[in-house]
Amino acid sequence: MDKFVVIGERIHCISPTIRKAMEERDPEPILKRAKEQIDAGATYLDVNIGPAESDGEELMKWAVQLIQGEFDNIPLSLDTANRKAIEAGISVYNRSKGKPIVNSADAGDRIENVDLAAANDAIIIALCSKSGVPADNDERMMYCQELLERGMGLGMEPDDMLFDPLFLVIKGMQDKQPDILEFIKMLTDMGFKSTGGLSNCSNGMPKEVRPIMDSAMIAMAMQQGLTSAIVNPCDKRMMETIKSCDVIRGANLYADSYLQL
Amino acid sequence: MDKFVVIGERIHCISPTIRKAMEERDPEPILKRAKEQIDAGATYLDVNIGPAESDGEELMKWAVQLIQGEFDNIPLSLDTANRKAIEAGISVYNRSKGKPIVNSADAGDRIENVDLAAANDAIIIALCSKSGVPADNDERMMYCQELLERGMGLGMEPDDMLFDPLFLVIKGMQDKQPDILEFIKMLTDMGFKSTGGLSNCSNGMPKEVRPIMDSAMIAMAMQQGLTSAIVNPCDKRMMETIKSCDVIRGANLYADSYLQL
Repeated sequence: MDKFVVIGERIHCISPTIRKAMEERDPEPILKRAKEQIDAGATYLDVNIGPAESDGEELMKWAVQLIQGEFDNIPLSLDTANRKAIEAGISVYNRSKGKPIVNSADAGDRIENVDLAAANDAIIIALCSKSGVPADNDERMMYCQELLERGMGLGMEPDDMLFDPLFLVIKGMQDKQPDILEFIKMLTDMGFKSTGGLSNCSNGMPKEVRPIMDSAMIAMAMQQGLTSAIVNPCDKRMMETIKSCDVIRGANLYADSYLQL
Repeated sequence: MDKFVVIGERIHCISPTIRKAMEERDPEPILKRAKEQIDAGATYLDVNIGPAESDGEELMKWAVQLIQGEFDNIPLSLDTANRKAIEAGISVYNRSKGKPIVNSADAGDRIENVDLAAANDAIIIALCSKSGVPADNDERMMYCQELLERGMGLGMEPDDMLFDPLFLVIKGMQDKQPDILEFIKMLTDMGFKSTGGLSNCSNGMPKEVRPIMDSAMIAMAMQQGLTSAIVNPCDKRMMETIKSCDVIRGANLYADSYLQL
């Protein structure tokens, strides 16, 4: 079994610091967050530039070259609704440490991002949803199949598709949580890779509760076979939990120092 | 789904303080540990008096009456190799808050403890093992069936049997961990209740690592449907994890204050 893949979520234009740095093409705040996440154990870094309608192509190219240039071509997940910006990012992307991830497609308006990933030999995050929250796992699986067929029809390997069950907020959708976990198991049993914005589960909870809930959720999801997640690698409790679960599920050999590795 | 049942493990004669208190019939150290565990959220308290060959009957009676008398008849798990001591404990046990647990039977030399539990309308912890570590889950399930048949043949309800997969130490038996978790799921799918000495998984690990590993393991085991565990309720991280997993699996309604409840 492969080690769990942590996609660091903290280079995101929703952060005022990062937004400003992106607007001003100021490298420092972005490189700082990149370094923090890499030091904390991120495998991939997500780069979210928002809708970036006006200058997305140039901005994404700048960000990709900046981060990969500084950190030994660390692999990136390119995250924007602007397709041309993703393509622009890929055009300057160095694959020596891993293919780029396109974040993301769904089975609705964004299904063409599968085509984009296929055309560029990239990995796609494929949300198993169309519009709104799927009613049940049959519906989730239908979307999964639509996305899979689209990708395979264009020559993608299933391993280049990371299916996202769409983690739902517990405050408001508590009763849906067992379904999400069950769906991850369905993906695992079919041999698929999976990912998701896990911390969505603790949205709206008190700040001190969130790492506790996120950590419980990721352990349960890893038991179901989740192979990756888009999370904050600087959440120490979460990273400790991921490393421990990787030991328990046999993806990493135990050593007394495993939390430091 | 019922809330997870925490059986507090800290009244155990392996602790020098507790051993001395038991020998001298000194209530204070025992009541102190009982209170700490109850305050931390234990549902049951395990009372382990060791082999107690000479004065086990009198000692267990004393301990049961002491703890139940002070703490509103909190339900207890009676833990000793001395069968007469367990029976003596049950003879003075107050059932108003729950049946006594007999800790424990296995499919080998200790299978007669099932008879003891059946004869006394008690709950039995039934280790799915005979001698040594079972080779695989087929063997575990064979022992589970032997124990189940024994109990049901004597009129026990399956709900009064807590099947124990026998958590194994990761340092030395890392490769067995996925089997243990899979076996818990097998028990759950058959509708059985389960328990176990979970912290055995982190035996021999550095002190600061143990709560982290135990917490990851309990979340994974709860995802598999584990209904109870014999643990240290004063391990804050473990209790936070148990409460969070109960929210995720729908055994407890979410409230912002759920960790304090």
